[in-house]
Amino acid sequence: MLTTATVSTTSAPTQFVRVREHTYAYRRLGRQGGRALLCLQHFTGTLDNWDPAVTDPLALDRDVILFDNAGVGRSTGKVPPTIEGMAEHALQFLDALGVNNCDVLGFSLGGMVAQQIAHERPRAVRRLILVGTAPRGGVDIMHLEKPALARYLNDPNLRGYAVLSKIFFAPSESSQTAGHSFIARLAQRTEDLDPPSGPDVAAAQMTAFREWERFTGERFAYLNSIHHPTLVVNGVHDEMVPVVNSYHLAEHLPNAVLLTYPDSGHGSLFQFHESFTRHAAAFLASDSPFAPY
Amino acid sequence: MLTTATVSTTSAPTQFVRVREHTYAYRRLGRQGGRALLCLQHFTGTLDNWDPAVTDPLALDRDVILFDNAGVGRSTGKVPPTIEGMAEHALQFLDALGVNNCDVLGFSLGGMVAQQIAHERPRAVRRLILVGTAPRGGVDIMHLEKPALARYLNDPNLRGYAVLSKIFFAPSESSQTAGHSFIARLAQRTEDLDPPSGPDVAAAQMTAFREWERFTGERFAYLNSIHHPTLVVNGVHDEMVPVVNSYHLAEHLPNAVLLTYPDSGHGSLFQFHESFTRHAAAFLASDSPFAPY
Repeated sequence: MLTTATVSTTSAPTQFVRVREHTYAYRRLGRQGGRALLCLQHFTGTLDNWDPAVTDPLALDRDVILFDNAGVGRSTGKVPPTIEGMAEHALQFLDALGVNNCDVLGFSLGGMVAQQIAHERPRAVRRLILVGTAPRGGVDIMHLEKPALARYLNDPNLRGYAVLSKIFFAPSESSQTAGHSFIARLAQRTEDLDPPSGPDVAAAQMTAFREWERFTGERFAYLNSIHHPTLVVNGVHDEMVPVVNSYHLAEHLPNAVLLTYPDSGHGSLFQFHESFTRHAAAFLASDSPFAPY
Repeated sequence: MLTTATVSTTSAPTQFVRVREHTYAYRRLGRQGGRALLCLQHFTGTLDNWDPAVTDPLALDRDVILFDNAGVGRSTGKVPPTIEGMAEHALQFLDALGVNNCDVLGFSLGGMVAQQIAHERPRAVRRLILVGTAPRGGVDIMHLEKPALARYLNDPNLRGYAVLSKIFFAPSESSQTAGHSFIARLAQRTEDLDPPSGPDVAAAQMTAFREWERFTGERFAYLNSIHHPTLVVNGVHDEMVPVVNSYHLAEHLPNAVLLTYPDSGHGSLFQFHESFTRHAAAFLASDSPFAPY
């Protein structure tokens, strides 16, 4: 499948870069010298949580960079309790790699960090893909205590990745089947693994979600300043970051196309990986100043 | 541009088919023997309101059929005061042409008729594209009396197609420019024209909109029965049929992908005709039972 890419998500070696007192863990795959695509991960997700069915096809034509933010996986330091803090680490990491301008794919928590990067340092970003995420001031962001999620998260029979097929996918048989395939793909990587995130990572990221729900002044006004061509993607049955947040993004970002998928939840990009990578590649291949592709 | 199509939207001759006491006017372009795409038009729109930048590219690979419903353009009879009545005429027309199964592109009013056809006679439809439209029980459907629309519709300086650039497009300079291009494309057709719709057509279609806003029983439940792969499309600043209606469609149709465009209103398919026809063609080219393309 990978004709021009050097390695796949399953086998890409973990690399490390040191910036001042921090060491960041990352993996890089795809076309060397191609345009960089920085991939920012979800709640408690590490480098091992990137689905090869998503990142491998995207690496065919570009330089895909998977990144562990501070305190996650083998990156040193503490997980910042704010999205701003996470964006600062991501920018410091890009600077260390010498990447001045790149495309950014942010999933869930990663999509919030991606918005913050685009808002704070617009020149660092060319095009944005925001999947299963929410604007600052969004609603019902990652409330794991609500019954629709807690019933799975508190089920002692669901260990490790098994819980992901429940909380990232819709209850339908077709979506659950896609969830099992997703987990099988993640399990293909067996060496050079990150340590799973512990309760400290989860607690700090939860603090960041709660802070991100708050806003001052006009709600969503900051989105007007993000002029980058943006592709917003969500499953219509997302319980973790409900699809209404993607509607807010697409209505308030001045230059965003929205794509929603049926019969799917938070992990719509994994469930419909063939469609998603086709859309993402077409969107990223465009040099137009406008989002429609 | 049209390599395999026989004629363009600008020059396709108007044809007529007689069924019992009715005569229906239509135009047919594209690949003879290709899969049929029935195009159902907006409020007061006639055959002359189809944008060649949309229907010509779609005709490259298929048999595009533009249709004047009863009482519109040169089709005889009275405009039915219900969507059901319009769907009945459309089905009678397809029967007369011997088209047993086709794709349907419904814009605005036409999208409501398309849903009704799919609901009533599922086997008649393969794939659905619903643009700038609403489900039964939708909200704020074609309330031309509201200030955002009335200020243009009551402006004596806006005659003929000129008003369309105001009500189909967003107020931004970029959208208005796209509106002027759209009108220039419509004006390319100068012969064999339909008579413009008069107040009787408008009144009956308005009655149908008001009836379509009403629902009994569980809201949107009928959408569960429309299993056809569906592509829902809308501009985020649509004042005529607000985008929330497309959210309802995509959340309640079991097999629908939603695509929204920024910086655009009701006529998003005309503004972003290159993107729209690319997406529509990719969606229609798929033989999958699932909507994602």
